[in-house]
Amino acid sequence: MTRNRITPVEAYEPPYYAAVFTTVRTQGPSGYGETDARMEELVKDIPGYLGMDHTQTPGGLGIAVGYFRDADALTEWRTNAEHEHRVAQKRGQAQWYESCTPHVAKVERSHGFVRARDPRSPTAG
Amino acid sequence: MTRNRITPVEAYEPPYYAAVFTTVRTQGPSGYGETDARMEELVKDIPGYLGMDHTQTPGGLGIAVGYFRDADALTEWRTNAEHEHRVAQKRGQAQWYESCTPHVAKVERSHGFVRARDPRSPTAG
Repeated sequence: MTRNRITPVEAYEPPYYAAVFTTVRTQGPSGYGETDARMEELVKDIPGYLGMDHTQTPGGLGIAVGYFRDADALTEWRTNAEHEHRVAQKRGQAQWYESCTPHVAKVERSHGFVRARDPRSPTAG
Repeated sequence: MTRNRITPVEAYEPPYYAAVFTTVRTQGPSGYGETDARMEELVKDIPGYLGMDHTQTPGGLGIAVGYFRDADALTEWRTNAEHEHRVAQKRGQAQWYESCTPHVAKVERSHGFVRARDPRSPTAG
């Protein structure tokens, strides 16, 4: 994936849903990048999926946040993801995380700003 | 700040609040680390503050998530933070972000798991 500009998921008009995953990776095992890509592949065709942001501090914490228009979209994604997770576990591939803490939340308020030189206008909610 | 082990904020029993900030930093200006520290200082004494996680992909996105027991705690923190932000702007110090997208959300569902060698027990909600 190449992107010239860092473009986080924009603020949408509330309510919408955010699924926050705070992760600590285990040391060593490979194949992690593929899983990340697979996760994005699983989610992108779900109606109501708004986008996903993820960050990773080297040697530290990772946070991924998926955004969904409504609870149904989130449920569909969760069902897919859980199925995939079970498959990965059977294959012994679910070794990448030391811990994973999900917080599923309904966004009640949001607003965004972008600096003037960015042509996009701010989204208010 | 030293910590030997990466310990993200745990899952709490819902409902509670999460304030997600997705940030893109500007290039160059210094003083950023101090602001991060100041932000944590501002928040830690607020009753109902549960914790904060932040991550930063080098050269990429940053995500910070603050957790609060209730809407009052979140409001108090937001008032403090906005005041501080205005002071920083007056001093011309609010230059660290290219963009900042906040999503304030009520956590409806959470659960966490930690691997067996971690002595903490999972928190279910």
